[in-house]
Parts: sequence; structure tokens; C-alpha cells
Amino acid sequence: MTNPFGDGVAFIDDDYCPVAEARIPLLDWGFLRSDANQDTVTVWKGLFFRLDDHLDRFQRNLDKLRMTCPYGRDEQREILMALVRRLDREDAYVQMIGTRGRPPVGVRDPRACVNRYYAFCIPYMSIATPEARARGLHLVVSDICRVPPESVDPTVKHYHWLDFEMGLFQAYDRGGETVVLVDRDGNLTEGPGFNIFRVRDGRLETPAGGVLDGMTRKTVFELCAETNVDCRPTTLPAASLAGSDEVFLSSSAGGIMPVTTVDGRRVGDGAPGPLTTRLDKLYWSKRAAGWHGTPVDVEPAAGDAATS
Amino acid sequence: MTNPFGDGVAFIDDDYCPVAEARIPLLDWGFLRSDANQDTVTVWKGLFFRLDDHLDRFQRNLDKLRMTCPYGRDEQREILMALVRRLDREDAYVQMIGTRGRPPVGVRDPRACVNRYYAFCIPYMSIATPEARARGLHLVVSDICRVPPESVDPTVKHYHWLDFEMGLFQAYDRGGETVVLVDRDGNLTEGPGFNIFRVRDGRLETPAGGVLDGMTRKTVFELCAETNVDCRPTTLPAASLAGSDEVFLSSSAGGIMPVTTVDGRRVGDGAPGPLTTRLDKLYWSKRAAGWHGTPVDVEPAAGDAATS
Repeated sequence: MTNPFGDGVAFIDDDYCPVAEARIPLLDWGFLRSDANQDTVTVWKGLFFRLDDHLDRFQRNLDKLRMTCPYGRDEQREILMALVRRLDREDAYVQMIGTRGRPPVGVRDPRACVNRYYAFCIPYMSIATPEARARGLHLVVSDICRVPPESVDPTVKHYHWLDFEMGLFQAYDRGGETVVLVDRDGNLTEGPGFNIFRVRDGRLETPAGGVLDGMTRKTVFELCAETNVDCRPTTLPAASLAGSDEVFLSSSAGGIMPVTTVDGRRVGDGAPGPLTTRLDKLYWSKRAAGWHGTPVDVEPAAGDAATS
Repeated sequence: MTNPFGDGVAFIDDDYCPVAEARIPLLDWGFLRSDANQDTVTVWKGLFFRLDDHLDRFQRNLDKLRMTCPYGRDEQREILMALVRRLDREDAYVQMIGTRGRPPVGVRDPRACVNRYYAFCIPYMSIATPEARARGLHLVVSDICRVPPESVDPTVKHYHWLDFEMGLFQAYDRGGETVVLVDRDGNLTEGPGFNIFRVRDGRLETPAGGVLDGMTRKTVFELCAETNVDCRPTTLPAASLAGSDEVFLSSSAGGIMPVTTVDGRRVGDGAPGPLTTRLDKLYWSKRAAGWHGTPVDVEPAAGDAATS
């Protein structure tokens, strides 16, 4: 029998439904004002990665946006578990979302809104296809500026992505696959769903500010500390990628992914670099071994009443 | 008998429904990436205002975002008419929305998305309550920067509003009712849903760049030309509001609305100014007389099959 939730499952209005059928109110300001915050946690071989860190960051960002979540932390945790159980796969991509919600009709005051919570879970997905991951991604550096910290706190995992979307089109036009944006001073920031790192003389560097404090970025810092690799957040002019030995992207959607061309020019010898490959392998082997892992509960907790 | 659409009506998936029940797919990138464009047109005394200008701008902005609308211009026009007919009020606020839509599950390429169109119509609403409109609004100048043109084209009527939302909270904290944001150089830009004007020595000024080319802003230019008032788009430092004789906001949601305090200090003598009041009256009287007006079709066109 086919699992009706096999392509993905969503939690909306206290109920679970196939993700393809999931709908949110048109009038939710999470849509009409993109007044929302999300967090994305992944499951690999039946283990959530850094689940508490993600729940912490989600709450921290709701606080920054002056939102509250209608579900407590334990309830949120159980909802995420229930989503993955229903998907019934070893590997999953799980997103929790807080929105401003909607005010009474005609009212334009965010304080009058009832905040909402949605979540969904789909089969694990990566920014890079397996083929692109093996040969390395083709990256384009855009002249579009990432929405700056003066406008929106970049550590809020928000949905203001038109800069990324237009950057992606620019990248495709130039023969690339993905894009990294700059700040107004021409320094690197981040791309659609990832942080960026470069390797130069055995040392790792990544943009220090104006970016999401990515969970995989943080994980790279830990892997570097553990293996005595010098790694520092700093200011990286866009041109610095050209003189790099290696470049990679970090994301919950894919882990550590090599970049082998930047603006059509090869990075290093044009193949995924040794440090990138080492960190990538270490990342997945440690995850498989349970590092920062939380098992998906096999049995539903008492609170998961809607269980089939 | 009560009209089920009396509180508002939405057009989604080729069908009309009460706006409170209207829902969009959770996975639409219009939500998950705020990859969307809208336009808002109003109806007053049974007349759409500048309907063709709004349809033109909507299409222009879809083009900028490399989106297409599944409905042709005549169909869009008929959908908007049908919405207002169902609302069955003389005065209405009508929003048309284009979104990127969604790609196949697991694909992260905007070119693989099927673009979507939604629209809704609610009773006319204003940024200012009648009471605030009579005494003038209390405005706060925020130090939050409006999402800059280097990131997102401000003439696209997008939903990147977290800067406005956080600015509104800042305004409430400081005893204000609404907010205007600045650019990185400290010059005025726009507020949540409006452009801003100031009067100084009988002359009108409004920010020239980094703002939406608002339809009511354009209308103010026309009213000024018609009544021989000097009006110029320019660069306005935030501090310039303090030395103004009058300040007002322009928006489809309210028309021309006086501001009588800025950051808690009175503008001029603290009452709505004479030029503001004159333009406001002229705006509404000309609208009532049919200026730039398109009547709401009483009879549905042949294409409006879903009519009750």
C-alpha cells in the first residue's frame, strides 16, 4: 500500500495532511507581508541533526520578531517527530514556520494578529544534485546585494528571497547553477539557502556578517576545531574567490558542497578540493554515527492524538 | 439574506470563495520565498480608479520578475469586476497577486515553477481611521532602512515587509501610529503602503528614488500640475520633516492623509495643513466625478461563468 504522506506531509491547523494539499490562509501576513520566520532541520538515517539548536534558534527568532508560537517547545518537538514518522523515510527535510497570522479584516496593526505555526516534512533534498555534488557546483557572483542587516536582521531565517531569486536567474543566464550575493561594499554574503567558505593556504574563511548564522556553518566551525583547521569569519571581497584554492557551500540542504567554477573560471584545478572533501566526509560520517543526533521516536508520544 | 461574500471574496484556482476561507498552497514560493508581486486598485462609489494603470503596472512588474500570468489582461479585468460584484459594495479594496508558484518536489529552480494568480476584494480600508484622518496621523521616523534598490527593485510591489513590520513596532513603542523608513544615507523613503510628501513654503517635495512609484503619488503629481502647485521628487533627509509646514501620506488605502506629529513633535501648528486638505478634497471629489474611473460592470461578462 502506498503511503499517502510519502511525498511529504504538513501540519496545519492541528492536523496532518499530504504536503501537496496543504494550504495556508491567503490573508496570513506571513504571505501578504512576508512577516514570518522559519527553521529547517534535517533527518539522516533516522536521526534529527541538532534538533535542540534548531528549536532554540526558531524561538530566538520568533522573539526578535515579537511573535509567539501557539505550541510549546515539547509540542513543537512532537509535531516534528510526528511529521517524520508519517513520511516514513530515513532521510528528511523538515521546516517549521512561524507567521504573524492575520488581524481582523480592515485592521492594519500587527499587534492585532494571531500568530500561527505551520510545519512540513518532505524527502531529504539538497541544493546540489548528486552529479553536481560529485563534479562541484558552478557558482556565479551576483552584483545584487543581499537584503542588508540595516533592513532585516539576517540571523532571522526569513523569506525575503527576491534578491536570491533574481540572482538565480542571473546565474542561469551566465551558465551557472547557483548564486552568491554581495553587500553594498562588494563583499560576499550568502546564497539561496547556504553560507559560503573559501580555502586559501590551508585556512578556511567565511563572511563574518550580514549572513544567517547557519547551522551547517556552525558545524563546519566545530569540525575545523576538532581537526585543527584554522577557520575564521572575516570580510571577503567578491574577487577573493578567484584566488582561492577551494570553495564550498554549507547548508542543511546538502551539507558541505564543493564549488569548482566561479563565474565560469575554475577554482584550483577544477575538481572538488581535498579539505572540502575531508570535511564533507567527516560531516556525514559523524552524523551517521549519531553526532548531535536525536532519534525519531518510533512510538508516538501521548500528545500525538492524530496518529493513524 | 446576508451576502456570504460581504466581508470579502477571493479568486483562487478559477473559483470564488469568501476571503476568510481562501487558502493558497503552503509550497507556493510566493510564500516560502516571498517570490511574488501584487497590485492594489480601489473602487469608490462604484468606480475603479486608474484600473488600466494598475493592470499595466502589474504586468510590468511580472515581466521584471520573469513571471507570466495564467490569465490574459481581459480575463484579469473580468476577475476583478466579478470580485467587486460579489462583494456588492460601492467602495472596495482589490488586490491582484502573481506568485512564482511551485516547482516539482525537491527541485529548487524557479524556472521549473508554474506561476500562479490570486486576487481578493474586501471592503475599502484606509491606513488612517476616520478619527486619525481628521486630526492627522502620528508618524515616527525609523532608523530601519527600507529594503534598498540594490537588493530588490522598489517599483516591484513586493511583499518584503519585515522592515516595515519592525518599524511599526518601533513606532508603537514611541507613541506613534505609523512609520516611515530611511535609506542608508538617512534620507526618507516610504512607509508600509504609502509614499510621503512634505510641504515647505507652498512647495511639495517627495522622495525621488528607492520607493514605489505609487499610483496615488502619481495622482498627487497630476493634481499639483492641474492646480499650479510646484511639486518635485527630490532627496529628503529624515530631519527635513521637522522643518516642514505640512506632511502627508499618499496611498490607495486612504488617499491623501495628513500627518500632524513626527516623532512626537507637531508639524506646523499641529492641525492638517491647508494644501493637504485642498489636495485631499480635490482627490475625492474628482474620483467621485469619474476622473480616471472605470465603472464596475453590473452585468457579468460572458467569461464570468462562476457567477451566482
